[in-house]
Amino acid sequence: MTSTAVVAVDVGGTKIRAGSVIDDTVGHIREAPTPATQGRVAVLDSIAEVVRSVLRDTEAEVPGSATLRWRLGVGSAGVIDPETGTVVSATDSLAGWAGTLLTAELTDRLGFEARAVNDVHAHALGESFAGAARGTRSSLLVAAGTGIGGGFITEGRLLTGRASAAGHIGHIPVAAAQGLPCPCGGEGHVEAIASGPAILAAYRRAGGGAGSRSSVASARNDVSSTRQLAEAARSGDAIAQQAFAQAGRALGSALGGLANVLSPEAIVIGGGLAGAGDHWRQPLREAFESELIPAVRGLELRPAELGQDAALLGAASLWSTDTGSTDTGEACTNEETE
Amino acid sequence: MTSTAVVAVDVGGTKIRAGSVIDDTVGHIREAPTPATQGRVAVLDSIAEVVRSVLRDTEAEVPGSATLRWRLGVGSAGVIDPETGTVVSATDSLAGWAGTLLTAELTDRLGFEARAVNDVHAHALGESFAGAARGTRSSLLVAAGTGIGGGFITEGRLLTGRASAAGHIGHIPVAAAQGLPCPCGGEGHVEAIASGPAILAAYRRAGGGAGSRSSVASARNDVSSTRQLAEAARSGDAIAQQAFAQAGRALGSALGGLANVLSPEAIVIGGGLAGAGDHWRQPLREAFESELIPAVRGLELRPAELGQDAALLGAASLWSTDTGSTDTGEACTNEETE
Repeated sequence: MTSTAVVAVDVGGTKIRAGSVIDDTVGHIREAPTPATQGRVAVLDSIAEVVRSVLRDTEAEVPGSATLRWRLGVGSAGVIDPETGTVVSATDSLAGWAGTLLTAELTDRLGFEARAVNDVHAHALGESFAGAARGTRSSLLVAAGTGIGGGFITEGRLLTGRASAAGHIGHIPVAAAQGLPCPCGGEGHVEAIASGPAILAAYRRAGGGAGSRSSVASARNDVSSTRQLAEAARSGDAIAQQAFAQAGRALGSALGGLANVLSPEAIVIGGGLAGAGDHWRQPLREAFESELIPAVRGLELRPAELGQDAALLGAASLWSTDTGSTDTGEACTNEETE
Repeated sequence: MTSTAVVAVDVGGTKIRAGSVIDDTVGHIREAPTPATQGRVAVLDSIAEVVRSVLRDTEAEVPGSATLRWRLGVGSAGVIDPETGTVVSATDSLAGWAGTLLTAELTDRLGFEARAVNDVHAHALGESFAGAARGTRSSLLVAAGTGIGGGFITEGRLLTGRASAAGHIGHIPVAAAQGLPCPCGGEGHVEAIASGPAILAAYRRAGGGAGSRSSVASARNDVSSTRQLAEAARSGDAIAQQAFAQAGRALGSALGGLANVLSPEAIVIGGGLAGAGDHWRQPLREAFESELIPAVRGLELRPAELGQDAALLGAASLWSTDTGSTDTGEACTNEETE
């Protein structure tokens, strides 16, 4: 990592989160809601405003920081072309985001240079250089949440792929998802059984939450989020436990196959589901290990360490020389996954 | 590629094949059977003898070649550590091969420097730099034959992976192979349904070759190789056609999922099955395309172009500066697949 002073920003569909990154330390966090329905100009203006707040706070608190040469590192939802700093495509959760000249527009507003990558790839870079995979030259980050995304680092560089499209690990076919529709438009992919919404859907398909006809019990069992479902599983709801186990097994199996192909030094599990507990984690690990060929055995799934700061540290690392990113802005793409 | 003069060798379980590679052109091919049951010294001696024959032929035919600085590039069956030039592990098809100090032993015998990679990875390097994927910076070679192996090139470098174990694309789980034993010791992997032996086994499980009870018909239908089975499929044997279609679909599906993760510029299909015909190729392509997410669509499966010379050109490329292989000897591992 470098001692360059960077304001790092994580742009998601619901929240803009930014902070200073000086000497690999995140500080002066500021957040604002993403004006996701108001179009690209509103989003760009909000990002710039949050960044200015971070700069004001930093300059007030860190002696000499007003004279630093600041740069901007962005991890954003959508498929981001790191070479041009543009948004290649994005889901409807960010209206008008596709086609945005992200780094150019932010440089116009802020007056300093900017680089950008997809948010999941920023997450992968952060865990690779500063988190659970630090010290490795190759690692796979898995972000399991609303979607299933990922980022693969090899020789210290992020795999970008043709059309900036690498890393879509949610779209590996798995037996357990056969016939289930996937958000990508296809079917049978691991995201169709293992994402947060897919786990909730499986729970409902299996009759979960409707065990008792009394209104009191119904209200208590009206599970509407993955977090609530995880609580239900911990409280002994067998259908919830089964939905998590099925999701964990499917994801573990897909990751085991991927490990046989990539043989990374580390696989890091992050995203909202990473806290779903043993009803998910144990089947995940068992299915993963059962797929490994002898030459790959011993590879373990590691929990992510940096939480929300991973994407900020990863976005900041775009300005670090040892990421290999200074010339081409290595980066990638993916849906949102938190 | 470079104009370094290289003798390149492809060491398989049944055959040692070598040739000169000068200015990216393969010549002076010599072959010998692999003394596979006679231990490592016999194999090393045979390799050295074949190499000496190539050198004699080259020096007799190419003016000035006796004064060239020769080097040796080896693609060998087994898991090869390219940094040390040793055989990490190997199947029983090459007795005593595991643990062989491959490059050191050959340098001792021949007097010039040697580098080595796994044979499938040599194949991938060859197709990447000189064959169907030339001009790309990222490609995946798929070698479909006795096994299913592969090699992934990114930024012009071969992905080696932890323990030199990357590239085992035959060990991706697929729905169609559920419950079928895989040569790796696991089950349900694509190799268990899509390799040549797996296709023959599926044909027999489905009653293929036993349609008539007359001894004449039995003899005619006694299919004992994938090549014969491909002929049976072309001649209208519906069970043979179905076995190939099932294998093609399973492999296509696994490759589609992998394409969503790696987003390479090209996927190249080689190995013995690549000539199996449309009963295999058409379902392969359809299943592959049906898995692709929108951002990856348009990626096509390309037929390999170099045949047996791919591994020789790839082994020679270990001495080429633009493979990035000169320092660390990028390379990999895999079972045999031809």
